[in-house]
Amino acid sequence: MCPSPVVDNAQRGFVIPIGGAEDKLTGAAVLQRFVDLCGGNRAHIVVIPTASRLKDTGDVYTRVFNDLGAGTATSLTMNTREDAARADNIDALEQATGVFITGGNQLRLSTILGGTGVFQRLRKLNARGVHIAGTSAGAAIMPEHMIAGGKKGLLPRQNGVKLAPGLGLTNAMIIDQHFSQRSRLGRLLTAVSYNPFLLGVGLDEDTGVFIGPDDVLQVIGSGGITIVDAGELSYSSMDSAERGDALTMIGLKMHFLADGGRYDLQKRSAFPPSD
Amino acid sequence: MCPSPVVDNAQRGFVIPIGGAEDKLTGAAVLQRFVDLCGGNRAHIVVIPTASRLKDTGDVYTRVFNDLGAGTATSLTMNTREDAARADNIDALEQATGVFITGGNQLRLSTILGGTGVFQRLRKLNARGVHIAGTSAGAAIMPEHMIAGGKKGLLPRQNGVKLAPGLGLTNAMIIDQHFSQRSRLGRLLTAVSYNPFLLGVGLDEDTGVFIGPDDVLQVIGSGGITIVDAGELSYSSMDSAERGDALTMIGLKMHFLADGGRYDLQKRSAFPPSD
Repeated sequence: MCPSPVVDNAQRGFVIPIGGAEDKLTGAAVLQRFVDLCGGNRAHIVVIPTASRLKDTGDVYTRVFNDLGAGTATSLTMNTREDAARADNIDALEQATGVFITGGNQLRLSTILGGTGVFQRLRKLNARGVHIAGTSAGAAIMPEHMIAGGKKGLLPRQNGVKLAPGLGLTNAMIIDQHFSQRSRLGRLLTAVSYNPFLLGVGLDEDTGVFIGPDDVLQVIGSGGITIVDAGELSYSSMDSAERGDALTMIGLKMHFLADGGRYDLQKRSAFPPSD
Repeated sequence: MCPSPVVDNAQRGFVIPIGGAEDKLTGAAVLQRFVDLCGGNRAHIVVIPTASRLKDTGDVYTRVFNDLGAGTATSLTMNTREDAARADNIDALEQATGVFITGGNQLRLSTILGGTGVFQRLRKLNARGVHIAGTSAGAAIMPEHMIAGGKKGLLPRQNGVKLAPGLGLTNAMIIDQHFSQRSRLGRLLTAVSYNPFLLGVGLDEDTGVFIGPDDVLQVIGSGGITIVDAGELSYSSMDSAERGDALTMIGLKMHFLADGGRYDLQKRSAFPPSD
């Protein structure tokens, strides 16, 4: 699904995928930046903890956002598709300046929220200027195509990844998270090998990218991000490989960006922190 | 150190780094190809087990090469620099059609054999047409610059790798081994970040590259290889990064090649198996 179109004079809100395990204490770089972006003491942040099976995930994050100076923060408990179709839950999003999707299992997000009124509203709100952040599973769900699972390891493999449809806040990239911590380059490469139009973005833990309305992202956090650009890929063996084979992929461009680094998604150009 | 110059009408022997843990049974693709290249039942293979502290490593490989049909195979025990300076050990190499350097610790190879008569002779023999293979530590030692150790993980880091001078059979690349099995992309990237003239080559276990006198390598084995080409690198933060920082590296070209894939080291071009 493509991002919801921006209408009238609105400006799209930031889309902020985070690689999981982000620092939650005062001074937490990624979450603090999100709170500030949403308006600081005038921010109203709605937390969607559906990916998590833990009962207190929503409360943990509302406390964190309060501690980081957000005006208000509330959690929206939705564990069934009926919950996600209820008018009061949809309306509860309406006052948000920012929405935060927690970690857990991204297939809970896609199977419980996919196609519901809440997800439809989320897409429209982002097009109207509401910032949407998500960590771990909450990051994976953001693009048109979602990595639902896959094998650990460096190398692309014929059966290395499982894809599913995502929320479609961006269709420029596919996102993986806990990236270097769980050695997920192989599954990201496999995802890109299926259809090289995808830009692969691997996010380390405690590291987020802030994708602005100008389609330029900036890296914030203590880890790094890995960008796989297959725009000049001259060969992939995905179509002919046997089950489990290591793939041949020729001509990938890759960038490794740390805190402050930027990437222009339209131009597919990377910039160091100092530029 | 650059490769020893080829003189007269000689043709350089193959250089064959292998990623470790290669199949040693009959039908073993990598070792069988090495034996065949060295002349099959007319091959005389000399094994250098110095990297290993196990007493039977040399015998294991001579048996393997005999089982794979080599004419003769002998092992050269050298545990001190004196051993490696002895004329009988140097002369023992003279009849070899192929030399095989076993795994173990590459710092044993560099500290015990570095600069000795045996290593000097090895370099000359390769320039005269003798094929030299090495697995694991025996692969790491082959280039001008050797990866002596480093940190596990995907991302390049300021202190991610330790380099040492190697044997200099090739100066086109730096080699890492047990590559995807031990998640060593980060240390290979760090090595390349120091001086991007280096081509980084990461070899999986049971996977070797046969580098011919034409400077074209071919991949043989059950795993894959990872090639990091920094020829178009536009930025590296290595010079300004703090200790342990994730590095920013912009504009790397990467290829993932499986069995049969080829790479032209002079043109820096990759080719799929079928070409």
